[in-house]
Amino acid sequence: MTPVSHPAATIVEPDSATIAHPLDALYAEDLESGDAPAVGQSVTRVDARDKVLGRAKYTDDLCPRNALWIKVMHSTIAHGYVTAIDTSYAEAIPGVVKVLTCFDVPDRPFPTAGHPWSTDPSHQDVSDRLLLNRHVRYWGDEIAVVVAETELAAKAGVAALTATYDELPFALNPLDSMAEGMATIQEDYPGNVLAHSRLSVGNYAEAIKEPGLIKVEGTYDTGTVQHCHIENAICFAEAQGDRITVTTSTQIPHIVRRVVGQALGIGWGKVRVVKPYIGGGFGNKQDVLSEPLCAWVCLQVGGRAVKLDTTREETFVSQRVRHAMQIKVTSWLRPDGTFAARKYESYSDQGGYASHGHSIAAKAMNCFHELYQCPNVEGDTWTVYTNKPTSGAMRGYGIPQAMWAGEGHIDDICRQFGFDPLDYRLKMIMADGHVNKFSGNENYFDSPRQTLLAGAEAFGFRQLHAECEAQDPAARIRRGAGVASFWYNTGVWPIALESSASRMVLNEDGSVSLSLGETEIGQGGDTVFSQMTADAVGVPFSDVHVVSTQDTDVAPFGTGAYASRQTYVAGFTIRQTANLLREKILAHAHELTNMPVAQLDLVGGRIVRTTDGRELMTLKELATEVLYSMKHSEHIAAESTYQIKTNAYSFGCSFAEVEVDVDLCQARVVRLLNVHDCGTLINPALAEGQVHGGQSMSIGLALQEELLFDPRNGKPLNNNLLDYKLCTTVDHPDLEAMFIENPEPTSAFGTKALGEPPTCSPAPAIRNAILQATGVPLYHAPMTPHQLFARFTETGLIGESLHV
Amino acid sequence: MTPVSHPAATIVEPDSATIAHPLDALYAEDLESGDAPAVGQSVTRVDARDKVLGRAKYTDDLCPRNALWIKVMHSTIAHGYVTAIDTSYAEAIPGVVKVLTCFDVPDRPFPTAGHPWSTDPSHQDVSDRLLLNRHVRYWGDEIAVVVAETELAAKAGVAALTATYDELPFALNPLDSMAEGMATIQEDYPGNVLAHSRLSVGNYAEAIKEPGLIKVEGTYDTGTVQHCHIENAICFAEAQGDRITVTTSTQIPHIVRRVVGQALGIGWGKVRVVKPYIGGGFGNKQDVLSEPLCAWVCLQVGGRAVKLDTTREETFVSQRVRHAMQIKVTSWLRPDGTFAARKYESYSDQGGYASHGHSIAAKAMNCFHELYQCPNVEGDTWTVYTNKPTSGAMRGYGIPQAMWAGEGHIDDICRQFGFDPLDYRLKMIMADGHVNKFSGNENYFDSPRQTLLAGAEAFGFRQLHAECEAQDPAARIRRGAGVASFWYNTGVWPIALESSASRMVLNEDGSVSLSLGETEIGQGGDTVFSQMTADAVGVPFSDVHVVSTQDTDVAPFGTGAYASRQTYVAGFTIRQTANLLREKILAHAHELTNMPVAQLDLVGGRIVRTTDGRELMTLKELATEVLYSMKHSEHIAAESTYQIKTNAYSFGCSFAEVEVDVDLCQARVVRLLNVHDCGTLINPALAEGQVHGGQSMSIGLALQEELLFDPRNGKPLNNNLLDYKLCTTVDHPDLEAMFIENPEPTSAFGTKALGEPPTCSPAPAIRNAILQATGVPLYHAPMTPHQLFARFTETGLIGESLHV
Repeated sequence: MTPVSHPAATIVEPDSATIAHPLDALYAEDLESGDAPAVGQSVTRVDARDKVLGRAKYTDDLCPRNALWIKVMHSTIAHGYVTAIDTSYAEAIPGVVKVLTCFDVPDRPFPTAGHPWSTDPSHQDVSDRLLLNRHVRYWGDEIAVVVAETELAAKAGVAALTATYDELPFALNPLDSMAEGMATIQEDYPGNVLAHSRLSVGNYAEAIKEPGLIKVEGTYDTGTVQHCHIENAICFAEAQGDRITVTTSTQIPHIVRRVVGQALGIGWGKVRVVKPYIGGGFGNKQDVLSEPLCAWVCLQVGGRAVKLDTTREETFVSQRVRHAMQIKVTSWLRPDGTFAARKYESYSDQGGYASHGHSIAAKAMNCFHELYQCPNVEGDTWTVYTNKPTSGAMRGYGIPQAMWAGEGHIDDICRQFGFDPLDYRLKMIMADGHVNKFSGNENYFDSPRQTLLAGAEAFGFRQLHAECEAQDPAARIRRGAGVASFWYNTGVWPIALESSASRMVLNEDGSVSLSLGETEIGQGGDTVFSQMTADAVGVPFSDVHVVSTQDTDVAPFGTGAYASRQTYVAGFTIRQTANLLREKILAHAHELTNMPVAQLDLVGGRIVRTTDGRELMTLKELATEVLYSMKHSEHIAAESTYQIKTNAYSFGCSFAEVEVDVDLCQARVVRLLNVHDCGTLINPALAEGQVHGGQSMSIGLALQEELLFDPRNGKPLNNNLLDYKLCTTVDHPDLEAMFIENPEPTSAFGTKALGEPPTCSPAPAIRNAILQATGVPLYHAPMTPHQLFARFTETGLIGESLHV
Repeated sequence: MTPVSHPAATIVEPDSATIAHPLDALYAEDLESGDAPAVGQSVTRVDARDKVLGRAKYTDDLCPRNALWIKVMHSTIAHGYVTAIDTSYAEAIPGVVKVLTCFDVPDRPFPTAGHPWSTDPSHQDVSDRLLLNRHVRYWGDEIAVVVAETELAAKAGVAALTATYDELPFALNPLDSMAEGMATIQEDYPGNVLAHSRLSVGNYAEAIKEPGLIKVEGTYDTGTVQHCHIENAICFAEAQGDRITVTTSTQIPHIVRRVVGQALGIGWGKVRVVKPYIGGGFGNKQDVLSEPLCAWVCLQVGGRAVKLDTTREETFVSQRVRHAMQIKVTSWLRPDGTFAARKYESYSDQGGYASHGHSIAAKAMNCFHELYQCPNVEGDTWTVYTNKPTSGAMRGYGIPQAMWAGEGHIDDICRQFGFDPLDYRLKMIMADGHVNKFSGNENYFDSPRQTLLAGAEAFGFRQLHAECEAQDPAARIRRGAGVASFWYNTGVWPIALESSASRMVLNEDGSVSLSLGETEIGQGGDTVFSQMTADAVGVPFSDVHVVSTQDTDVAPFGTGAYASRQTYVAGFTIRQTANLLREKILAHAHELTNMPVAQLDLVGGRIVRTTDGRELMTLKELATEVLYSMKHSEHIAAESTYQIKTNAYSFGCSFAEVEVDVDLCQARVVRLLNVHDCGTLINPALAEGQVHGGQSMSIGLALQEELLFDPRNGKPLNNNLLDYKLCTTVDHPDLEAMFIENPEPTSAFGTKALGEPPTCSPAPAIRNAILQATGVPLYHAPMTPHQLFARFTETGLIGESLHV
């Protein structure tokens, strides 16, 4: 105990401005970025620190302590009607507050797809479900809820419910569902076809009459896979005044608001949606699933907070899956490999409800015929209701299935003709300058060839391919090299609305707060939005504070994270709002310095006179002076909506090396390289991360992931992470990503789609590598050992006596 | 169990749009309001339902479940230096995470007053405290904190701390503190005078030489009282990225942001402040007290959430109190009662820290001399540091003290001269058309006389006063009637910045979301803002959704709730932003209907053609069409700052009837009427509520509330709600409120100050009523039985033999 004579004499001042942590050193680097443009730099994610430290808030972190629990009762038949539900035992359980069943819900069907609303009824999504459904369309359909004070009581309540059913025939694939005698799954769709569309270019029937054509045909199908985001679906709802607030793990808060309004039959402005950080979505959270039910239940218990937290098992079944598709491709070729005519026929397994429905199958078909131009194309695609979990949006939105078929088929052609798969692609793939008449997309830079050539070079593809060709065709362990291309568009224009708004506020310290409707879903959106804002406004990256949480009461409108749209789309509104903010700042700079606006600039957070480069004042000085001016005070803020009426081709390809153990019927990816032209990279490190994630999903699709169903009753067999073989890092080689940065001319920052593209080409590249290794073309993804065994046996690669 | 044939056949549809509750009937009335203007209607508060149902979220409701607890160690001496604090025992307590003392804090003094920042250093508030203080200025000063996993561990930690001190002499009133030999309380203010200001009008010294003048003199003082809001001070802080978020029960979120930035030495944009609903403030939450400490502690524990929840006992001592003032008034009058000269001398008890400091005493002096014009006035007012809890803003901001003195003194004059107190006021009070040269305030409507006359009529004052004059002067129970006037200004212009921003967003259902920086603190701000918005935009009241929570990351700037400014100030920005929103809406209406904008109007949520009154479309239709337009999509929003460069006189008076039990020395208010001209009423019911609350506070000040201190050591004696006799409904008569609605010409909605005015005149009216009842002028508030006994004894009203 040391007596002191003066109160401040010996105080050692801790620097309270910093938060001491090992991450600080890393973080400090970003803070020093100064005048250098932020766009193009691999700055650390703005949310890295909070996510690493466990500080980032997710939905459950925000849920009121006294929220009631909702647990859902799921049907135990695949198809039929609930005739009754006995709730008496459940209601007697202590802690159970209310039991609500499919007999209690309003008869107000609503859509769930996370599409922008259309005021044209013919463009609106199908409304084919109620909050709880008496007509049960799949094993696991939602038929009742128990609301209770505790999770335990809610679970016990569900266990105590008994339902009786009138059962109906069920179908677990499109063809069975379309068959004569099958029961109707959705009343408005007898025959169970949700939609059928045709594609017709030139005259297929005439074209195939050309003499000397060679026909190559194959049917390629993909299984049912699931997104497997880390955070399951979760939301909670609370009433406020005569309004309701839903906090939810979603990709699309503004769309959730609309759908909750539709489902509840209330004004959309009476719904407030809050989206905190979310633990992944991949399209599954581009559907509005739990929120309407949660909101409605809230209103049935007097507006008290209620939480609907989904288990992994429920997420697998009651949320969304990727459409299983069967795609038959027929090509009529001349001996030089050019196409005379092509045909595409597909059946897309929709499951019990429409969700995003036919748009996915239609997109797949449209994508297919664009990549390799052919004058005569005929296509038919059916989206068919089945008694399986509902298929919805999943990263790639039909293109992984289309490329599985299309790019597998290209190698089947090459094999039949003896073409080199790389050279054949280089010869045939979409030409430089090609313009899509519908979307206006143009192939400005011959990107398909550029990515193929650059990737082949980096991967050593030609040499590897030649080595593999030369290997011992009887070896047990064989190697193969495969390549596959893809194209992908950016956003949804002109099919649907592309509109995005943003708001920027100048803070007293010269920093800028950015709000927008586009969402961070783990992909790094907030970071790239901040980078673009820093450059567009003229402040250091560290002086941009992005409001990550979308609260629809205050967040500008944006439709959210899907269609690989956000970096492209947000760029426009950020650029436009930044210009408005700069105008206001420079007008005040003029008032304060008397210099003409035309001779003023805002650079790196400083007001600079352009004629001599002198710094006249810092933005901090200007901001403080303007806000607190006794003469002309203003809280400088700018806001604008930008409607996007362009779209852009995103291109790329994958190169895979595989090793196949023929006897064990097991394939392993040894190397995988993706090459992308997604325009100018905003943040190379984050771009690489996107590619790695997409590659992983595609490896899963290619080799191991599939949700299986008991053919006897439609019950899912492996709806958990033990039995569903999710692709993880142990299943990966070192994933490689490469970029060709052709700045997209239509884009505010030169950027275009990268979110979904990485999932499009790895699976067919792996398939084509296995084809080279074994000579066996595979038609079903995933290519599990079961599949390989069947095909190797069928093709005689393995027989009665194995290498044992 | 009834089997059904069709899934929707027998469902009885509950109306999910409504939240079933007894309040619904009441609420529905508002929803029907239709086209009628909302302004002027007593619509139900927008937060009524949530507050009644317990749904409204306060700070503690939002605190993360895993937040650490902060408990503060308070000094047990009134003045001196902490020489050491032994933390070893506290640190050994399980659950204690960290102990931080006044030896750990940065040497960075900061101000706490909730004033708008000024870029002029001479107008900035005094910075005279650190986060924790080694120089202890009052019994209860904050010297250390214990941070722990639980409240219990934190409390145990504080109990285990031992501090040693070097004690200094202390003073518990201004005169003692200014006396020779008293120790210096704040190093920069030797002599302990924080500030002294002079007022000089005409020539007092010359004027008093006029022959025949009669001198009336009195010294009027008020005790230390406290705000006693229901919700004690509470806040919590959490780090996010390199920023810090403080959620707090405050009146002034944007100012909290600035002060936390100052105290921590970080950019103000690095601080985010969130203000949820709060349980009252009355000026105590117009100081930034707990937030900087809480934020700093958060950074010392790695950014983890920490909560600082103050007990009632701490709130009484470590927060703010109303300045105890001693005011000597000397008037020199001619026999007709006109003033030749007046003098005002006051000492204001500041306590240990500057807080709002001298501005309150200065405002009191300026108010005093304005109400009754006199050509020669001299004034001196001292604000003096003492070793008591710090005085800050409290409802009325010096005017209750000034009116206690000034209006008591008027009745002392009347008594000495034999004037009727009502007639004398009517003769002498501020004239119609009077203009204050500094503020520009004008008495446009002779409101002081109008309120006096209307109130006297309604109260039956003249008859009551006459009856009381005629009562038995020896009765034990006596009645008296008193009157007192006041004036009050509106907001702080031109002394300080008045600037307010707002943002409005059009929702798809035609409703409008309103955000602004001005705060709901229980007074009904959100409701009147919504009413003004409804009329200014042209939508029904039920279609305005106000964002109650201010989150400084997204809320427009506003300085907050103080100076009775908000309804006046917010009116300007609401009107301006509404006009901007209307412009955008009507421009789109033009696009959609082809009608010229000049012939379009927005009325009651409908786009109307003014030439024939036809409704062309609803705002809902327009909003949905515009947002989702494939041609011209816009998220219609408008935002603007309005800088207010006017101010307005608010006037009123109180009439009190009291009954005095002379023997018990007890006075009871039998009736109390306040009459206010606060301009146009936005919501009469809420205005009446404001008046009732102010009357209650003023009755407390007049009769029963006083925070007492042990003269031996400065320790507070009654800092709890058992011993501090807070005025509650059991102490009230039926409170009456009356309004004279002269629309204020400078105001956007005709309104002016009403928040604080009701506290200004009741206490002197009660005092004057006791004077009439007993003939005894009282000089100290509160007029407790102790006071009455002393004065009744002193004046011979009671003597050795009582009426027993």
